[in-house]
Amino acid sequence: MEHSKAFLLINFKTYLEATGKRAVELSKQIEKVGENAGIKVGVAPQFCDLERVAASVDIPIFAQHIDPITPGASTGHVLAESVKAAGADGTLINHSEKPLLLADIDKAVQLAKQTGLNSVVCAGTARLAASVAVSEPDMVAIEPPELIGTGRAVSKENPEIITDSVKRVHKVNPTVRILCGAGISTGDDVYTALKLGTDGILVASGVVKAREPEKVLASFCEAVLRVE
Amino acid sequence: MEHSKAFLLINFKTYLEATGKRAVELSKQIEKVGENAGIKVGVAPQFCDLERVAASVDIPIFAQHIDPITPGASTGHVLAESVKAAGADGTLINHSEKPLLLADIDKAVQLAKQTGLNSVVCAGTARLAASVAVSEPDMVAIEPPELIGTGRAVSKENPEIITDSVKRVHKVNPTVRILCGAGISTGDDVYTALKLGTDGILVASGVVKAREPEKVLASFCEAVLRVE
Amino acid sequence: MEHSKAFLLINFKTYLEATGKRAVELSKQIEKVGENAGIKVGVAPQFCDLERVAASVDIPIFAQHIDPITPGASTGHVLAESVKAAGADGTLINHSEKPLLLADIDKAVQLAKQTGLNSVVCAGTARLAASVAVSEPDMVAIEPPELIGTGRAVSKENPEIITDSVKRVHKVNPTVRILCGAGISTGDDVYTALKLGTDGILVASGVVKAREPEKVLASFCEAVLRVE
Amino acid sequence: MEHSKAFLLINFKTYLEATGKRAVELSKQIEKVGENAGIKVGVAPQFCDLERVAASVDIPIFAQHIDPITPGASTGHVLAESVKAAGADGTLINHSEKPLLLADIDKAVQLAKQTGLNSVVCAGTARLAASVAVSEPDMVAIEPPELIGTGRAVSKENPEIITDSVKRVHKVNPTVRILCGAGISTGDDVYTALKLGTDGILVASGVVKAREPEKVLASFCEAVLRVE
Repeated sequence: MEHSKAFLLINFKTYLEATGKRAVELSKQIEKVGENAGIKVGVAPQFCDLERVAASVDIPIFAQHIDPITPGASTGHVLAESVKAAGADGTLINHSEKPLLLADIDKAVQLAKQTGLNSVVCAGTARLAASVAVSEPDMVAIEPPELIGTGRAVSKENPEIITDSVKRVHKVNPTVRILCGAGISTGDDVYTALKLGTDGILVASGVVKAREPEKVLASFCEAVLRVE
Repeated sequence: MEHSKAFLLINFKTYLEATGKRAVELSKQIEKVGENAGIKVGVAPQFCDLERVAASVDIPIFAQHIDPITPGASTGHVLAESVKAAGADGTLINHSEKPLLLADIDKAVQLAKQTGLNSVVCAGTARLAASVAVSEPDMVAIEPPELIGTGRAVSKENPEIITDSVKRVHKVNPTVRILCGAGISTGDDVYTALKLGTDGILVASGVVKAREPEKVLASFCEAVLRVE
Repeated sequence: MEHSKAFLLINFKTYLEATGKRAVELSKQIEKVGENAGIKVGVAPQFCDLERVAASVDIPIFAQHIDPITPGASTGHVLAESVKAAGADGTLINHSEKPLLLADIDKAVQLAKQTGLNSVVCAGTARLAASVAVSEPDMVAIEPPELIGTGRAVSKENPEIITDSVKRVHKVNPTVRILCGAGISTGDDVYTALKLGTDGILVASGVVKAREPEKVLASFCEAVLRVE
Repeated sequence: MEHSKAFLLINFKTYLEATGKRAVELSKQIEKVGENAGIKVGVAPQFCDLERVAASVDIPIFAQHIDPITPGASTGHVLAESVKAAGADGTLINHSEKPLLLADIDKAVQLAKQTGLNSVVCAGTARLAASVAVSEPDMVAIEPPELIGTGRAVSKENPEIITDSVKRVHKVNPTVRILCGAGISTGDDVYTALKLGTDGILVASGVVKAREPEKVLASFCEAVLRVE
């Protein structure tokens, strides 16, 4: 089955519902929904769960962060090579809950490239999205921090930030792909986001904290199919 | 076989020699040396390696850090429950390469207790060791940052800092155990550290970056036996 | 006129009501109220206002923070010598709005001593108060962060935290003086705080944001006189 | 007398040679050299010295940093309004010794605009210079951190980084002015920097730590005159 162009990435954050064995179970459910719909889905579990999730599913797996360090004396830091060795395919960078210094965002993107990890750099405004696009990550995720976790989707609440981001990011870098995040909780939110010119979705509580995560994700997949 | 009272904890930092599969191999070697000598040894691998190391050996396993957070929206952070679910028995806190705000050290120690993780709080001076002992962690590790990774052992270079730390820490909290770190690279360093009143060793490059880690660790174990 | 033993320290934070010329005016009002009542009062203006305030009043002046640095290449940092040269007599350290790494709190306290600045180290709990007392600052200020700016005084809401702090701090260091902060807004709050064994008050919005700061401060002074 | 187009900005960092009264004296010397040569010079003293320097000279005065905050409960932070009230005309932002989160750089630039402060945002590489130019500060200063304080000028050691920065920055924003920093210590360094397309110099130790700061600065001014 052909995969969608759109990409749905589910961030597990540090939710207990997606910690340890439950990270594996949830990843399997997500994989199944994606397969059934023919939609490309990925997961971003916690560091300690990357390996067991990678061993259990065959979908893109992202770390939630890497530190701007090379191998050495960096106790407690997250090394790109370690994330890669655990089976990750990519990493989030500069999530609003784990913001980085400007110089460290750029370092992390370059380290991801060197290690063979796809990079998704998060940004809270159109201007910041353009700033991080300069570093040429694989993807930029637009997530206005004030909407994260609210269930009020940026694609509905503030569509201009998305269209403005798409325009500004592509001016800096026409090939970077753009994810839409913050408050996504319904298929309509997904549909709107894609219609505004984004290439996918970054979602967390909307799926992970849902009573029936598969159903919610299935509705997201249907929305993608309506667009494509 | 009875285990030693002394505890040798090997910190893998972000050394490539101790990343991914090599973390597992090194942990197995360490376990074997400890078993042969009847000495209690432990390892502190990177987050992504905790689970596979825990599945491969039967010695105490420590995370290198936990964040002062509870489950929720903390992308990219290290949750105590996640570390525990991966099979860790304990965690380092406030290593000089991952220093924490004062309030966060205390939070992390309490979170470790609640999650059933042993806590080793690092401190660079005798005064700071006494400060962190107030939070009643299981262990305090004295590591003057200026000696870390030098091969010049604190127990030789600056024995007063150890004796002073032991005295100050036990005044605040008589039951907390004390590890000696920074620059430990020979059996003599270990012997001296224990003779000065500490309960074990926190070591990284001295073992991990050694040409023959088993031999170095074996010499550490012999030193423990000479003392006990 | 003899001064009180109790000390009332007013933190100007970054309130516009206490910025620039208004910092000078407010400091003069505070000085006058203190003089009239014979109570020792002090102010903690912003860095840029230290010099003009020091040139205008003759009461203790505190910086709100110093960085743990010595002279050199530290653009944008706050040097103890600079604060001293501007006329400050002391400095807050580790305010909950400007928290420091454990090791940096200790460094800042030692730098304050070396520069001839009185140090007031803030702590949010009784345990943290005991931790910072180890560094032997001149004063420890107990300020539960959850009560700061609420108008609900710690001395009323949670008197045990004060009595517990006094006991724990004095066990570590019998000579350090203790200020009570967070939510202080009435003379009764001050009275209770002193009765619980503290040596003074650290207050911000309760005075600075009051419609009539002099009246509020006068009522604080009356409360001190009731105790002494 | 007409002023030069080029701008020479001297960063006082936290050097004792430029603290307190010595900040005033040095600023007066700098003003005099600039006046004599007809070159636009500015100074960036420490926060506590801004007011007395502003009261003593009539040249552009920059803070070394502002925090991304608005008036309120931000003890120990540097408020744009406070810097402005002290007499500053502008501020450095994101100096490599005081680096900021990406989102905070943008906030600080907008706050500077709103407060009527000129903004000079520092960046260590051409790519980062382009990133910060997106926020539309008044100036971008290129300072490779590895050359700061070395006396090895970026304009000589690594001229490509300057030409590349000029190109990338102007592509993003054609009107932003560009300063060249890091290691500038001779008139030749200044001449080269301007010839490479920059609009001025950001210098610290090269002037402040010189035996005869006026002579060094005079040689910088001569270099500007050779170019213009």
